[in-house]
Amino acid sequence: MDVQFAKRVAMMDSSVVRETLKLTARPDIISFAGGMPAPEVFPVEPLRAAADKVLRTAGRTALQYGLSDGVASLREKIAARHRAAGMPCQAEDVLMINGSQQGLDLASRLFLNPGDLVACENPTYMAALSVFRGYECDLLPIDTDEEGMVLEDLERKLAANPRVRLIYVIPTFQNPTGKTWSAARRKGLLALAERYRLPVLEDNPYGDLRYEGEDVAPLRALDTSGIVTYMGSFSKILSPGIRLGWMVAAPEVLEKLITAKQSTDVQASTFIQMMVDTYLADNDLEENIRSLRALYGKRRDLMISAMKESFPKAARWVRPRGGLFLWVSLPDGMDTTALLPRAVEEKVAYIPGRSFYAGEDVDNTLRLNYSNATEEQIVTGIRRLGRVLCSHLG
Amino acid sequence: MDVQFAKRVAMMDSSVVRETLKLTARPDIISFAGGMPAPEVFPVEPLRAAADKVLRTAGRTALQYGLSDGVASLREKIAARHRAAGMPCQAEDVLMINGSQQGLDLASRLFLNPGDLVACENPTYMAALSVFRGYECDLLPIDTDEEGMVLEDLERKLAANPRVRLIYVIPTFQNPTGKTWSAARRKGLLALAERYRLPVLEDNPYGDLRYEGEDVAPLRALDTSGIVTYMGSFSKILSPGIRLGWMVAAPEVLEKLITAKQSTDVQASTFIQMMVDTYLADNDLEENIRSLRALYGKRRDLMISAMKESFPKAARWVRPRGGLFLWVSLPDGMDTTALLPRAVEEKVAYIPGRSFYAGEDVDNTLRLNYSNATEEQIVTGIRRLGRVLCSHLG
Repeated sequence: MDVQFAKRVAMMDSSVVRETLKLTARPDIISFAGGMPAPEVFPVEPLRAAADKVLRTAGRTALQYGLSDGVASLREKIAARHRAAGMPCQAEDVLMINGSQQGLDLASRLFLNPGDLVACENPTYMAALSVFRGYECDLLPIDTDEEGMVLEDLERKLAANPRVRLIYVIPTFQNPTGKTWSAARRKGLLALAERYRLPVLEDNPYGDLRYEGEDVAPLRALDTSGIVTYMGSFSKILSPGIRLGWMVAAPEVLEKLITAKQSTDVQASTFIQMMVDTYLADNDLEENIRSLRALYGKRRDLMISAMKESFPKAARWVRPRGGLFLWVSLPDGMDTTALLPRAVEEKVAYIPGRSFYAGEDVDNTLRLNYSNATEEQIVTGIRRLGRVLCSHLG
Repeated sequence: MDVQFAKRVAMMDSSVVRETLKLTARPDIISFAGGMPAPEVFPVEPLRAAADKVLRTAGRTALQYGLSDGVASLREKIAARHRAAGMPCQAEDVLMINGSQQGLDLASRLFLNPGDLVACENPTYMAALSVFRGYECDLLPIDTDEEGMVLEDLERKLAANPRVRLIYVIPTFQNPTGKTWSAARRKGLLALAERYRLPVLEDNPYGDLRYEGEDVAPLRALDTSGIVTYMGSFSKILSPGIRLGWMVAAPEVLEKLITAKQSTDVQASTFIQMMVDTYLADNDLEENIRSLRALYGKRRDLMISAMKESFPKAARWVRPRGGLFLWVSLPDGMDTTALLPRAVEEKVAYIPGRSFYAGEDVDNTLRLNYSNATEEQIVTGIRRLGRVLCSHLG
């Protein structure tokens, strides 16, 4: 075949995530590369019971088309959960989507023209970078420190770049760094976004997975002007294989998101939505989250102790208070992309930090996931990785 | 909120389909508007058993992330079914998507730049028009007759419009007209597409629902140069509420579709794919299709007899040999959009034909669905609609 592809195809990332997931499929490799939950604690039996109940009692409804915005009772449960956590939210503010990745796509469709700029944390979620680039947009990386985006840098860059059309942030347990924004930075970001009339896309798949410290309100809870579009997901607190997430947005934005959702794939699965709705009615999601917190907190601690034992002394990391990832910095001059094949030879995998940077290439960082591997794999895998890193440094 | 939306937002159709589905939710209205299957024949129990088996035997895998291209054994079953029907197809030629609507979106992403033209049958599937317009493209309507696109018209328009980048067709039991292309026209279309190096997007959600006559090979089965990208769906032969369909394409196209799928929403639900894979292993899909053919064929016949009794003599339609729709033409000067509110007052609904035209507005046509309503509803609803049409003509 000899046909012409659209311009955006050249911008579409070759699939780092997909190649990564392929690595993890090799059973002899201990992979810290993906962002997968621990399958051994999926609430399989409660979800089976929910699926069974839905198909026994409302099978015809579950297997039929439904509305594009989603199943009403599920939207209400999600809204109620947000309200309980201090975010004003009604059922009609919620749109059901296929995981929050789809929210990135729908929001891009709404807000971005080719040639626009997206201001984002640097580093940030690599698959978000792919989405924005696929919309033929450039990234405007903003400096970050321990409290979030450096607001002076954001302001300076917004003032200098009138083509910025969207600000994308993961304020809680950021991917890949694990950092959480302070309340002051959150308020400061909103003030700047309002001043520049820029929509803010808040990605919060990890917010519930806190292992220590106090909850911080999401941007959407602090937003008085409807400037924040929020994305939540069941992937990390229930199951990613069901592909279910949601967006919360101002009415005039949500209406357009629903139209975009409908045009994209009509609606999220009626059956999956009813299954989750039934699960939430018959089970305590918070209990499931508590058990994930206990497990992942333990794995984080174990990974950090293992790293202390086997990583080179010059390696640096910040202990994340939640989320799924440890972000490691190695001495200047080390190249984690070049090292990856050597790590895979030693049967351990990670993601080179370079994939997460919006601007300059940074070669001496890497991301480790601690939720998916068992305790034994964490100990063995970190020892293997330590050997690779030390032998390269030594 | 006072932010700027992207240019494409102005092109995104307000949602005819969604408003339509809202109408159908009113229990007092007999709706022939949607394109919904008959819920009373969904294989609820076999699908329940499949869901149960998957979650009992492979729950952790089903609830976890999977590969973006889809579950291998399901892709193989789909490929084998295509091969059995004469289409060369291997598992690796298949991408699992959330219903064929998503195929329209992914193909548009691959092939269309803003300002491009899409050649299509006129009238055609209205939600496809929305997708192409959402990509800031214009439609190039091609004349059709009883055998499909008029090739002379297509050739003349391709020669005159170098901005055409894609040809979109529903060659079997077309939506909305119910027409099926002849084999000669299919071959002629492929020859023209090859000459102009234009990809062809073949949408085939209804091909299995044939009530009389012989099967005609899909374009993809006749395609020797890989120019056809094919979309299939479980929505009309199994269940639309599971949101599962597939694409078949040449390797260099499929690879890019997978990248686009991943960026859009990572993957189709692992659980849903495994449920359908198990259903296909443990049940006879062809048996389910045979029962749908019997039921829908009967409903088509019943609707046509009811129309003969109560519709104005000047109304015209072609008896479709398959699919879900009857396409009705009324005398010039009648306006089915203006009549719809009067029909709804009489508690019957249809879709005005105007929504399906890519070019000029045509006011005197309407589309009726005969798969979703019961026999009793068909008789009562067509009588009501006949009264509205006759009173307006009289």
